[in-house]
Amino acid sequence: MTLLLIGPSERGRVWSQVFEEAGAPMVFGEDAVEDPTAIEHIACWNPPEELRCYPNLKTVISTGAGVDQMPEMPEGVALVRTLAPSVDEMVRDWVLMASLMLYRDMPCYLAQAAEGDWRAHPPQRASAGRVGIMGLGRIGRLTAATMTDLGFEVAGWSRSGTPVPGIGVYRQDQLEPFLARTDVLICLLPLTDETKGLLSTPVFGMLPPGAVLVHAGRGAQLDMEAMRAALDEGTLKAAMLDVTEPEPLPKDHWAWQDPRVVITPHIGGQTDSEEGARHALDVIRASREGGDLPGLVHRKKGY
Amino acid sequence: MTLLLIGPSERGRVWSQVFEEAGAPMVFGEDAVEDPTAIEHIACWNPPEELRCYPNLKTVISTGAGVDQMPEMPEGVALVRTLAPSVDEMVRDWVLMASLMLYRDMPCYLAQAAEGDWRAHPPQRASAGRVGIMGLGRIGRLTAATMTDLGFEVAGWSRSGTPVPGIGVYRQDQLEPFLARTDVLICLLPLTDETKGLLSTPVFGMLPPGAVLVHAGRGAQLDMEAMRAALDEGTLKAAMLDVTEPEPLPKDHWAWQDPRVVITPHIGGQTDSEEGARHALDVIRASREGGDLPGLVHRKKGY
Repeated sequence: MTLLLIGPSERGRVWSQVFEEAGAPMVFGEDAVEDPTAIEHIACWNPPEELRCYPNLKTVISTGAGVDQMPEMPEGVALVRTLAPSVDEMVRDWVLMASLMLYRDMPCYLAQAAEGDWRAHPPQRASAGRVGIMGLGRIGRLTAATMTDLGFEVAGWSRSGTPVPGIGVYRQDQLEPFLARTDVLICLLPLTDETKGLLSTPVFGMLPPGAVLVHAGRGAQLDMEAMRAALDEGTLKAAMLDVTEPEPLPKDHWAWQDPRVVITPHIGGQTDSEEGARHALDVIRASREGGDLPGLVHRKKGY
Repeated sequence: MTLLLIGPSERGRVWSQVFEEAGAPMVFGEDAVEDPTAIEHIACWNPPEELRCYPNLKTVISTGAGVDQMPEMPEGVALVRTLAPSVDEMVRDWVLMASLMLYRDMPCYLAQAAEGDWRAHPPQRASAGRVGIMGLGRIGRLTAATMTDLGFEVAGWSRSGTPVPGIGVYRQDQLEPFLARTDVLICLLPLTDETKGLLSTPVFGMLPPGAVLVHAGRGAQLDMEAMRAALDEGTLKAAMLDVTEPEPLPKDHWAWQDPRVVITPHIGGQTDSEEGARHALDVIRASREGGDLPGLVHRKKGY
């Protein structure tokens, strides 16, 4: 029931300590594996090239919130994503910051500041703003609650349309009415075959003119050229992106220099190593006891 | 019991309508005053040159949240500042945005973006951040509540030290311990003789190294050259200013071009004209009935 951790050395240091204190066996790095048959769990962001080298593997734990970097799991191997409350809050904070920056015209004021230009534009009240959140997982629901508290009129869009207390929820087939009532579009979707390239010309065309985009899902969900056209046409007023395709975004990409686009280098959330290690211990315990694995990824849905 | 409104024509239009519906007499602009003895209330940002022209004047209503632009009132004239919930929320939103921008390293990422430089720095959790709010009036208390909800450890500093539920409050003579525990310093103080020039070298020197400044009080409270020295020495890491001295900040001022300083042109809050007009009606009613004037300014404290 040994866990193999693959990742940066700082993470290895923290996990080793947590596992040692818990009396749970762990090895750090594939080079340190002496007996592949002893490995029952692997925690990693980038998986090993050949999972089948570990014949007794039971779970693979993604050390981040996403699993889109993972290959299909061999039969009998469960895929789990890390559950760490701190990541949810950090991403919520980034989304909140980005939404307020766009809602309060920061891209315009930043451009003016570069020219030393003191010109005020009438500020908007949060209660006049309609926020639309794509993806109502843990982070989406947390963001919805916070933005509702601030006075925004919040709605969500999710595949299932499962109700969320306090906000209106639109189902997958109600994308058009969801977008028609959205001034601040927030993407927190997981990357799947269905969400790849979703943020494209037809979607932007359904938004009210002057809407803004806050993107903290995955880079491959956004068609950057379609976004540029929507900005040029005024469908979109501005955008903030924490994810791009590819990452890092090349130095000479047009979006860096476009005053209507603000880019941060995928800093929305970062899993706290100690929280990640404790979650892994929970997964191992549940696996041993035959309970539900916390953070289990649905094989078909892909998240 | 006529009210004289002095201000921009758009405000005049909204107030005229609200007053007409309420059956309350109002004139817009000093030029429209036929009988100065009929004027019992004046609502304005910049007051008329000679208040004594109005012998029956009872109240002067500042159409903004501050009253530092007002002269001393003649004997028997009450000074009132507008109470409009929307302004409180708008300023809270700006302060929240600015705090998150500084806490999540936006000045650094904006500078990197200008170079097309994708480099992530470890993000911080709100729960690791100690926010210190100078000034615990309506906006200060609202901001404290919101930032506590986000996980920040919030304390406040006020002249009276009056307790505020959920946060630690430091009295006027406890400035040093207040600053020593503050990573994000937020100024929401009114401008008075005591607060003029308060944000200066000794204050910055009491902050822990790498603290950040969010300034939404009044420009004259901040010594810009002291801030620059604190930034150079690393006492301050970055600052966001919505107020400056003077306003507008001159085009060639160094702060516009300093990547550690982000400036917005006093857009934190703007009183909604209709809310302002309704507050003025409340003041007139209270004045007639001998009740407490909503928003009355304490003559000695100056706010």
